[in-house]
Amino acid sequence: MTHQQAPARSGNGAPPLAEPSFNLQAALDQIEQLMYDTVNSDVDVLRDASRHILSAGGKRIRPRLTVLSFAAAGGSDVSLAAPLAAAVELVHTASVVHDDINDHGVVRRGRPSVNSIWGRTFALLTGDYLFTKVYELMAPYGNLNVLMAEAASALVEGETLQAAAVKNNQFTREVYYRIIALKTAALFKAAAGLGARAAGASRSFEQALESFGYHIGLAFQIVDDVLDVTAGSEQLGKTSGIDVEQGRGFVVAHDHAEQAPSTDPLDALRARIMQGDAIHEAHEQANHFVEVAVSGLSVLPDSPAKQQLVELAWSVVDRSA
Amino acid sequence: MTHQQAPARSGNGAPPLAEPSFNLQAALDQIEQLMYDTVNSDVDVLRDASRHILSAGGKRIRPRLTVLSFAAAGGSDVSLAAPLAAAVELVHTASVVHDDINDHGVVRRGRPSVNSIWGRTFALLTGDYLFTKVYELMAPYGNLNVLMAEAASALVEGETLQAAAVKNNQFTREVYYRIIALKTAALFKAAAGLGARAAGASRSFEQALESFGYHIGLAFQIVDDVLDVTAGSEQLGKTSGIDVEQGRGFVVAHDHAEQAPSTDPLDALRARIMQGDAIHEAHEQANHFVEVAVSGLSVLPDSPAKQQLVELAWSVVDRSA
Repeated sequence: MTHQQAPARSGNGAPPLAEPSFNLQAALDQIEQLMYDTVNSDVDVLRDASRHILSAGGKRIRPRLTVLSFAAAGGSDVSLAAPLAAAVELVHTASVVHDDINDHGVVRRGRPSVNSIWGRTFALLTGDYLFTKVYELMAPYGNLNVLMAEAASALVEGETLQAAAVKNNQFTREVYYRIIALKTAALFKAAAGLGARAAGASRSFEQALESFGYHIGLAFQIVDDVLDVTAGSEQLGKTSGIDVEQGRGFVVAHDHAEQAPSTDPLDALRARIMQGDAIHEAHEQANHFVEVAVSGLSVLPDSPAKQQLVELAWSVVDRSA
Repeated sequence: MTHQQAPARSGNGAPPLAEPSFNLQAALDQIEQLMYDTVNSDVDVLRDASRHILSAGGKRIRPRLTVLSFAAAGGSDVSLAAPLAAAVELVHTASVVHDDINDHGVVRRGRPSVNSIWGRTFALLTGDYLFTKVYELMAPYGNLNVLMAEAASALVEGETLQAAAVKNNQFTREVYYRIIALKTAALFKAAAGLGARAAGASRSFEQALESFGYHIGLAFQIVDDVLDVTAGSEQLGKTSGIDVEQGRGFVVAHDHAEQAPSTDPLDALRARIMQGDAIHEAHEQANHFVEVAVSGLSVLPDSPAKQQLVELAWSVVDRSA
């Protein structure tokens, strides 16, 4: 939640001529409603399981990125961008439901995972259902479907590359960056790019926003991987330690001692990682990517939405869950 | 394969003024190539697993339906319809890969299933990948995406309803027809409807072709369910008996003795089913649906493609695999 301070008043007591500020919360409420309404299947399990995972919340960073990019690029009627933001979040949600099957995750967003309540078969079908609802939301958007198709495909490729790298014991730094570019940054890039395109942005604005999304996507994933090691399950709202235990994530790729899946118990593994310099290095990298992201916004005119994008970027690294 | 006979020559030795015939095989070759090229991931597992399942073939009845509907509705440049046909077949292929995970199917199209070679994790991701490639193929088609979104969603709903009905012991006739309408007939309907729309067909042609697709979809699934009981795995190219063993399919819904999952060994169960009248009834139902399908084509002008659609419809019931 962004708490905005009242603007400082000018000397004569009259309110300043404020720029019209972008109401992010109203946009997010619209997106939530849209997602909820979209998964209205007559088949009880699909509707219930979809709403279970959606109503658990989440950071909603991708839809924030879409609507803020839309506004920063000059868009005004946010209902033009809301279905795109909802579609992006549904791609992410579908991937989360399928990830939890593959990782045997039992907690997600502070709740029991879909697979732990409904079982693997229904979880697989729920993820598929959410994917099909992305189409439905995207159908009116013509060429923007290409951006979404590429991002969804990249996401699956990143997840696959990760599983293959772990299996083949090839979790190097180079592979790590390729993985996070595909599995996370591509959808962040699309989230921003779709917002920009819906606003009818110029090519240079669109590229700036796509680059912004891409780089905070990289930062977001690196911080996620660090939190997997340093935070507890309760704090994260999902099973912590799962990445490092399975031999993947930033610290595994950056700590040569951990390149092979460790046979240490999780606590010992964590203690050893905390003593190394991988976590420090991760924070440096994440900060670097946020700086790149933010500096690229300089081509855009100043606006409340642009300022909110900058705040969003820094919130990605300054977080504990 | 359709083997066309050389046309009878007229008395004076000159070739007759033949209607230009629709070259179905050339269209199918184009579709195969397109699917093969589309799943060209840099991630080895996705590319290999996708091509493994695609190159195993299959009846390709859905893409046949798309391109024949296109031609019967007056379309001429088949390359306009080929990506739609490929997209429809990829939806089906993705669902097959995911079904085999849920059903522990080990053989598909006469080959080891994706999950049996690459394991469940990679099979799940391969199915997801194929779904994302549907978007890519559909992206240029604007409003046609709505038809595809609805069909894909219905397919997942049908699969889910089936699993839920088995689990809750509610596999009645009524539920059975709802299941096959969703899981099979909706995509057949879309396959035909997409072809018609790509040809710029009138609303009445489009409706006739959609109804045709829908009804042969119902017939196809009923025959599939019968073959599950009457044919062997080798003949089908997939594990036979899986439906009836799991307490689903036409004969389960239509034979009151089988409404509850049977504890008989599969052979005994099959023998008991063969003695009942469910299989006879299934053939009658399937034939009825094909008759409805074919009679609805009367609004379309005669053409070689229309004739090929009629042949396709009857091939759905006259098959042994």
